[in-house]
Amino acid sequence: MSLDIRSSELKSPIDVAEYLFRRLHEVGVRGVHGVPGDYNLVALDYVEKAGLNWVGNCNELNAGYAADGYARVKGIAAIVTTFGVGELSAINALAGAYSEYVPVVHIVGTPSTLSQKSGMLLHHTLGNGNFEVFADMSRNVSCATAKLNDPHDAATLIDHAIRECLAQSRPVYITLPTDMVEKKIEGERLKTPIDLKHPTNDPQKEDYVVDVILKSLHAAKNPIILVDACAQRHKVLAEVHELIEKSQLPTFVSPMGKGAVNETLPTYGGVYAGDGSNRGVRERVEASDLVLTIGSVKSDFNTAGFTYRVSQLSTIDFHSTYIRVRYSEYPGVRMHGVLRKVIDRMGKLNVEPGPAPTNEISKEDGEMAQGQVITHDWLWPRVGQWMQPEDIVITETGTANFGIWETKFPKDVLALSQVLWGSIGYSVGACQGAALAAKETGNRRTILFVGDGSFELTAQEVSTMIRHDLKPIIFVIVNEGYTIERYIHGMDASYNDIQTWKYKDLVSVFGADPEKSKTYTVKTKQEAEDLFRDSNFAAAKHLQFVELYMPKKDAPKALKLTAEANAELNAKE
Amino acid sequence: MSLDIRSSELKSPIDVAEYLFRRLHEVGVRGVHGVPGDYNLVALDYVEKAGLNWVGNCNELNAGYAADGYARVKGIAAIVTTFGVGELSAINALAGAYSEYVPVVHIVGTPSTLSQKSGMLLHHTLGNGNFEVFADMSRNVSCATAKLNDPHDAATLIDHAIRECLAQSRPVYITLPTDMVEKKIEGERLKTPIDLKHPTNDPQKEDYVVDVILKSLHAAKNPIILVDACAQRHKVLAEVHELIEKSQLPTFVSPMGKGAVNETLPTYGGVYAGDGSNRGVRERVEASDLVLTIGSVKSDFNTAGFTYRVSQLSTIDFHSTYIRVRYSEYPGVRMHGVLRKVIDRMGKLNVEPGPAPTNEISKEDGEMAQGQVITHDWLWPRVGQWMQPEDIVITETGTANFGIWETKFPKDVLALSQVLWGSIGYSVGACQGAALAAKETGNRRTILFVGDGSFELTAQEVSTMIRHDLKPIIFVIVNEGYTIERYIHGMDASYNDIQTWKYKDLVSVFGADPEKSKTYTVKTKQEAEDLFRDSNFAAAKHLQFVELYMPKKDAPKALKLTAEANAELNAKE
Repeated sequence: MSLDIRSSELKSPIDVAEYLFRRLHEVGVRGVHGVPGDYNLVALDYVEKAGLNWVGNCNELNAGYAADGYARVKGIAAIVTTFGVGELSAINALAGAYSEYVPVVHIVGTPSTLSQKSGMLLHHTLGNGNFEVFADMSRNVSCATAKLNDPHDAATLIDHAIRECLAQSRPVYITLPTDMVEKKIEGERLKTPIDLKHPTNDPQKEDYVVDVILKSLHAAKNPIILVDACAQRHKVLAEVHELIEKSQLPTFVSPMGKGAVNETLPTYGGVYAGDGSNRGVRERVEASDLVLTIGSVKSDFNTAGFTYRVSQLSTIDFHSTYIRVRYSEYPGVRMHGVLRKVIDRMGKLNVEPGPAPTNEISKEDGEMAQGQVITHDWLWPRVGQWMQPEDIVITETGTANFGIWETKFPKDVLALSQVLWGSIGYSVGACQGAALAAKETGNRRTILFVGDGSFELTAQEVSTMIRHDLKPIIFVIVNEGYTIERYIHGMDASYNDIQTWKYKDLVSVFGADPEKSKTYTVKTKQEAEDLFRDSNFAAAKHLQFVELYMPKKDAPKALKLTAEANAELNAKE
Repeated sequence: MSLDIRSSELKSPIDVAEYLFRRLHEVGVRGVHGVPGDYNLVALDYVEKAGLNWVGNCNELNAGYAADGYARVKGIAAIVTTFGVGELSAINALAGAYSEYVPVVHIVGTPSTLSQKSGMLLHHTLGNGNFEVFADMSRNVSCATAKLNDPHDAATLIDHAIRECLAQSRPVYITLPTDMVEKKIEGERLKTPIDLKHPTNDPQKEDYVVDVILKSLHAAKNPIILVDACAQRHKVLAEVHELIEKSQLPTFVSPMGKGAVNETLPTYGGVYAGDGSNRGVRERVEASDLVLTIGSVKSDFNTAGFTYRVSQLSTIDFHSTYIRVRYSEYPGVRMHGVLRKVIDRMGKLNVEPGPAPTNEISKEDGEMAQGQVITHDWLWPRVGQWMQPEDIVITETGTANFGIWETKFPKDVLALSQVLWGSIGYSVGACQGAALAAKETGNRRTILFVGDGSFELTAQEVSTMIRHDLKPIIFVIVNEGYTIERYIHGMDASYNDIQTWKYKDLVSVFGADPEKSKTYTVKTKQEAEDLFRDSNFAAAKHLQFVELYMPKKDAPKALKLTAEANAELNAKE
């Protein structure tokens, strides 16, 4: 075929699939998520050859969630699916990664280029000879698409896709037809790593913006820093921490930014999300005359239903593609270089000593429930006392990812949740990916909090955790259904109920070795206390699964407020 | 708001959501599948009001599969999901329904029209203010789209979508914004049922085609009939059976047409799929000088890898939108009217008495394995002896939907499988939907055969069956992984392995009442015999779950042949 490259033209011939997987290895991927399917089987033979491990998830949606979780820990992930059926099953997870700026390389095994050209009536097609339709769908949730239909440009397309994935911190979509897998291309290219450097800002423009920022900063009496999701995703946390330490300004995080900032610093104030915040936090933030937001994402759930009371007139926004000072926008200026210079040139600030930020729940707000029933207001601060530095904690959309606002993290905790995309079931898959990443990189504990309703969407991925001997601590909050939905609409509606399972028995059903796993039932505060004090439990030496019983209608205050705002918005005309 | 219709203009005001659900009731929907989400909650309040039951699936993909299964039994189904996350999770199931001509109404609860217009940064969005992107994706797998953004045309759009869903036998996509749910529209419209009649063919054109067909038919010496999927989907089986009885021609089915024809008729010959067929079938079909195909879908898996040996020169194809006689095409002629006239005007055929079709496996082909190990060549004919008239049998893509070719059905059996789309995991969701439909329409037994690998994708939907007190008989073929993939590539590759579960223990984990469920383990032919002879088992009085152990590398002959052809095609240049 004319598509082939002559072997004599190649110094170090390498198969397309091997090239692809070796490039993924180069940028840090070790575990490859996905599900086998006939259009990707031959490609899967190359996973191990490239020094990677095949995960083999139970289904593609879970694999996508797992890749997302893995990428949030390791910086990038890969998932392999098969044409049509596999890729569409995963597309919601990829859309989530797109929405939340998570770099995932999605590789789809497709029918051969020959079959595609002749429009054959193959399985996994719509039966209409259209082989582009699924790629067209994925284009909407990918920052780059690479169709490897020709060995001549395969390496270029692969390198480009991986570069964009990391640069834009979003998914890319790569199709690998069955007849391209073993095509020979030039392996010499691999000797030069993919160039991952970001272009630097135009120095004159950057200096101009830095001057404008410093002028505002020096004029301010009580500025604060507010760190959000994109500070994490665009990897500017080192600069953020220098800024905090040098300026000594009170620092807050958004819900999506939770975990981005060292919460043991004396200047750390807590989670700000408008009306959803604790009173002390809210008052401190809203009294500020200059808010430096870093990587801000002002979505409904990240602002407790658009209840920010911070004027753009007293805000400076740092983003990966622009800076905004009050209403002046500076497009094409990346925050990294700007923050660097702001730190270096800051000098002395004219800050008036204000009250230290307080993140306590005031008595009016938090009437701590008495008795042995485990409530959210009791649970989440207590979790914070139990957590350890470097823990990875995943919280599901629902009571858990609102509750975690009240958990004060030790140093270097990484928090995963899907505040913007909010696809329930995400956290179970993400936990598998995060726990695998944790295993690859040392012995970080991986802790999951998920409600029973959400758990049921994706429960089988606990089986994959067992299969790979991962050691997460899984808390399933057993509270009889979709509590977050109850607070939006239908508090007692049967559609918010679920079938109750014997959740912890799944560990045995999924084939866990009883010696290498443990399950717990926790129904009272005392039982929870006992568990949190149990050093064997804390040591996380094997998979642990906790059924945590909580009342059906109990929810964190922040969830209640956000749900109310949400219900109003839904009805608004 | 200007969008509102004045109440004084309405004779019988009715809310948009109630109108929608009452129309669904009118066309035969009773159970509504789906998962609650905040953008659809208020709409769900109307499900019961319209006399429908909310199913409440564990996740949206499963809900989509369930709706597909329900529609194949009842003729139409509905699924409700929420914007973005929910609809994308389900889209693979809808693509399957599109591919396989299954009428499913997909209703998506979306943010309010106001939020959409102002491009708000809401959860379940990509964060880019684009609220059209998901509808654009679904457009590719829907035969009509209805965006209910205005009460003035809501009823028209709803009626149109439901009509198209049934007329084209494919999914339609309806968006219902939160602020439209309770808008008043004219309820008088409901007094006139939706017009579901198909337009009749142009009589002159129809007569012309019938003449051409009859000329061929009378000239033929040994014509046969081959019935395929679209004969079922486009509801022409009554005409097909009349044709068979009047003509007394030998009749065969394709794999996708399995179950469409009464297999107890003496003229029934078996499954024809080219080289995948039994020798007697193959010889009889391929020796025919005129093949009448009805609703043919010549996909790879439906033809054992494109191995049909039937020339178009001796074929007449009957379709829902055209007729083809040899190479002459007659577009715009629907098979129903044509078949009617062919039957009425057929007269005496000049058929030479040939051998009665035989569907026996010849000795060369089928070396029946001795001993107690349960093999596919033993199992599937035995299943046929155990089955009862009116059974619904669902087979997963893999060993099961190839194995079923050798199962001779009693009268009025309905067979469900996804031969074209082939999304593994489908059958478990479809079983829930089919079992619910069976419950609504009488006491048909619903029987599922699914391999362990496929079962793991969607296992939680067994919980929904338990929740609704459904009574399927579930056979999980425990054979250590993806056997169909092994035959395509990687016979011993670890990526074709799975984590082995204690499958039957799930019944208890999912909360089944031990009095209302029973589980079995079957490892030998004798144990299988005992089970098939057990009248309590056959009575299907409650949910029954069978672990059926079979060898890892055993597969039906037809699967082996198809997989081989498939692997060759994948590698072909």
